[in-house]
Amino acid sequence: MEAASDVGLYGLAVMGRNLALNILDRGFGLSVYNRSRERVDAFMAEHGAAYPRLVATADEREFVASLASPRRILLMVKAGEPVDEAMERLLPLLAEGDILMDGGNSNYRDTERRLLRAAERGVRFVGLGVSGGEEGARKGPSLMPGGDPEAWPVIRPFLEAIAAKVPSGEPCADWMGRGGSGHFVKMVHNAIEYADMELIAETYHLLRVYLKTSHDEMRTVFAEWNKGDLSSYLVGITADALGVMDEDGEPLVEKVLDSAGQKGTGAWAAAAALELGAPVGLLAEAVFARDLSALKDERVGACAVLGGPKAAPTGERHSMIEDLRKALLAAKIVAYAEGFLLLRRASVEYRWDLDLSRVALVWREGCIIRSAFLDHIAEAYRRESGLPSLLLDAHFKALLDQCMPSLRKVTARAIESGAPVPAFAAAVSFYDGYRSTWLPANLLQALRDRFGAHGYERVDRPRGETFHSEWK
Amino acid sequence: MEAASDVGLYGLAVMGRNLALNILDRGFGLSVYNRSRERVDAFMAEHGAAYPRLVATADEREFVASLASPRRILLMVKAGEPVDEAMERLLPLLAEGDILMDGGNSNYRDTERRLLRAAERGVRFVGLGVSGGEEGARKGPSLMPGGDPEAWPVIRPFLEAIAAKVPSGEPCADWMGRGGSGHFVKMVHNAIEYADMELIAETYHLLRVYLKTSHDEMRTVFAEWNKGDLSSYLVGITADALGVMDEDGEPLVEKVLDSAGQKGTGAWAAAAALELGAPVGLLAEAVFARDLSALKDERVGACAVLGGPKAAPTGERHSMIEDLRKALLAAKIVAYAEGFLLLRRASVEYRWDLDLSRVALVWREGCIIRSAFLDHIAEAYRRESGLPSLLLDAHFKALLDQCMPSLRKVTARAIESGAPVPAFAAAVSFYDGYRSTWLPANLLQALRDRFGAHGYERVDRPRGETFHSEWK
Repeated sequence: MEAASDVGLYGLAVMGRNLALNILDRGFGLSVYNRSRERVDAFMAEHGAAYPRLVATADEREFVASLASPRRILLMVKAGEPVDEAMERLLPLLAEGDILMDGGNSNYRDTERRLLRAAERGVRFVGLGVSGGEEGARKGPSLMPGGDPEAWPVIRPFLEAIAAKVPSGEPCADWMGRGGSGHFVKMVHNAIEYADMELIAETYHLLRVYLKTSHDEMRTVFAEWNKGDLSSYLVGITADALGVMDEDGEPLVEKVLDSAGQKGTGAWAAAAALELGAPVGLLAEAVFARDLSALKDERVGACAVLGGPKAAPTGERHSMIEDLRKALLAAKIVAYAEGFLLLRRASVEYRWDLDLSRVALVWREGCIIRSAFLDHIAEAYRRESGLPSLLLDAHFKALLDQCMPSLRKVTARAIESGAPVPAFAAAVSFYDGYRSTWLPANLLQALRDRFGAHGYERVDRPRGETFHSEWK
Repeated sequence: MEAASDVGLYGLAVMGRNLALNILDRGFGLSVYNRSRERVDAFMAEHGAAYPRLVATADEREFVASLASPRRILLMVKAGEPVDEAMERLLPLLAEGDILMDGGNSNYRDTERRLLRAAERGVRFVGLGVSGGEEGARKGPSLMPGGDPEAWPVIRPFLEAIAAKVPSGEPCADWMGRGGSGHFVKMVHNAIEYADMELIAETYHLLRVYLKTSHDEMRTVFAEWNKGDLSSYLVGITADALGVMDEDGEPLVEKVLDSAGQKGTGAWAAAAALELGAPVGLLAEAVFARDLSALKDERVGACAVLGGPKAAPTGERHSMIEDLRKALLAAKIVAYAEGFLLLRRASVEYRWDLDLSRVALVWREGCIIRSAFLDHIAEAYRRESGLPSLLLDAHFKALLDQCMPSLRKVTARAIESGAPVPAFAAAVSFYDGYRSTWLPANLLQALRDRFGAHGYERVDRPRGETFHSEWK
């Protein structure tokens, strides 16, 4: 066997297998390895004949020896300890200048640690955010590499080739920055994905329970929305899902248990925001909504005890559906504004110098939150790279002017009707808080100064000058 | 010098000094030590004559040698590295069975680590939550010890003596549990404190900006509320603060910059909840509200760009103030329900076996959230230790039945009027989500199954059985 493969892929679970086929379809020579040999054998049996440049390897030594230098290895193992284990097996076999990419949903702090560990051996480490699920992996994912900048020129042609492309042909793969920035950006992507989905779910809930909309009509509504400002992969698959029937002819979605899981990245993003002091109430509520849904038995018990309004909201149905569309759009803008606020904070704090227009473009295709909407975000940051908030961009401000009255109306009616709308409500809270010259934090500071002698600043004195009073 | 002091106190910043005087007032012999000698000298100069059992020590060796065995040492140094540094200086000087208490706002994970480190030397480590600010430290704080259970009988008489007392005489000091449980409970206390304060601040905001209430009237309103179900330290000092005038005769609180700081424990609690899957949207919004307030310049800029309703809510002023009282009470119940939900989750996950009625009693006096309200929480958990949520307790359910309509009304009106009420809104969201038999998480699961093949459970099949569909 000659050392000829362009790329090595370590880990043949479903994401790894789909990426492997994507890589092979782009004409790269690919060596694959998996700790349990059966997966390699099964993969070869199924695809070996179709891809002459596919090389199976039996152990780490053979795997590494089969790769052209400098080696480009893509780890596709479960986030957490398996990544460290794979690294420790590979590092002794690698040479200076070789590149190790971690394509899992790793925590960005682990990536920072692994960068240092790999550097001890002269190996260039890359934390590679990969989004798009199984389908994206197969057909072209969105790729968010970050880490050792020396690696980028070497992996760039490869990553650009396997990535999704925007209509103009640009690849959805770009260098994010140093350190754990690639995995951080992927984590924020997932938090936005959670929020986007929760907002759609709350809209569906109001349509179904309060407007008594049939599944057929809901399918039509979402399909219609998917042609306008809300056009996105998630709205499209929502329309699809609402049209799927169970064997008994009833909508299948109604047979699904309303108890949602989460894999951690959304919660990590909210925790990172708490640490960075970035207010992302909507992103956090989207995580908590899943947590609350998982308390199914408690909820069923509480329903028998706790009272609420019985009346459904009244009004003209057609205009209420249009209000819902506008509410969903306004709240979606807030969700993205919070996500980009978090990225901006992290970029400053960790000195990553993120280019937010490139982040938006990388998410334009291939990933779960893909949509034309992201073009406008990219444009906003191209126009003004230091934009404090997406809400202030002319395009989004114009949409908010059109849609915020509906978001207010829908949220207020839902609250009066007893329908839970945590993400809608958090969207209004962020919008109104962000545009408030004056918030009641002056009282908080007075109370903190009273019981903890924290000190306070004054509106009529320079910042940084602190005062203390007895407050009684 | 004979080895006669009952207790050693390490660290003479403001909290340490006040605790020292409290300890001396209870008749204990106390040795004090501080790394910079000046603080010891100043403290002795001021108090040495009044307290014959106060012993100044010049270095760690002398400090340790001055203590009766088994030694009881209370560390009052800044949370973080200073605690580790102090530990490392003291450990080599201590004997097996000696007790080291950390009275700072340490992260409970650090406490878990320090327990193991101290145990290597046979030293019993206690993470001691201390609440009540400077005044509490001086007159009797609320104390939440947790860690090595062998320490409790030895420190109990001392902690009970210096703690606050409830009217019946019971001390607000009790053993929380193993590991980092003491500091965890203190962390949740602080998160509830943030929420309690934010709810008061939102109420003040609505009174001031939307009902155009004068400061004099607001002072009267809060003082009146302080006689009923809302009676609490925080409502009392709010009334005080609103009555304080600046030199120019204007209300001083209006001169305070509306940009709030935070010291981390509130954010830690929300992050711990995210990790544990405990939905605490209100507690998180209280942290984010401070973060948003700190973006003062961005807010001032956004105010000029982003539009909102101009109209103030209309209605009869007197009844609206009563609605606000009820709204504040209902939202406060939700804040405490979230806090105790977080404690219950942590107790199960970390096997702490927390007695939640004892937690409530410990908070009854001495700490910042002290109030008669906590008596009812203690009673609720005494009646039913496994109560899934405070919302379901008969006392609180009756209050919620009276007050939830007002919370809905106030929140809906605020949202329609453009007034930011993140904590009020999150309170409604939690209440309505928790009492929903059916949440739209079925759609989330369908979408996750579509793009990630996550699988779903069905309402008509046993839990644990998972299905997968194409959803198109």
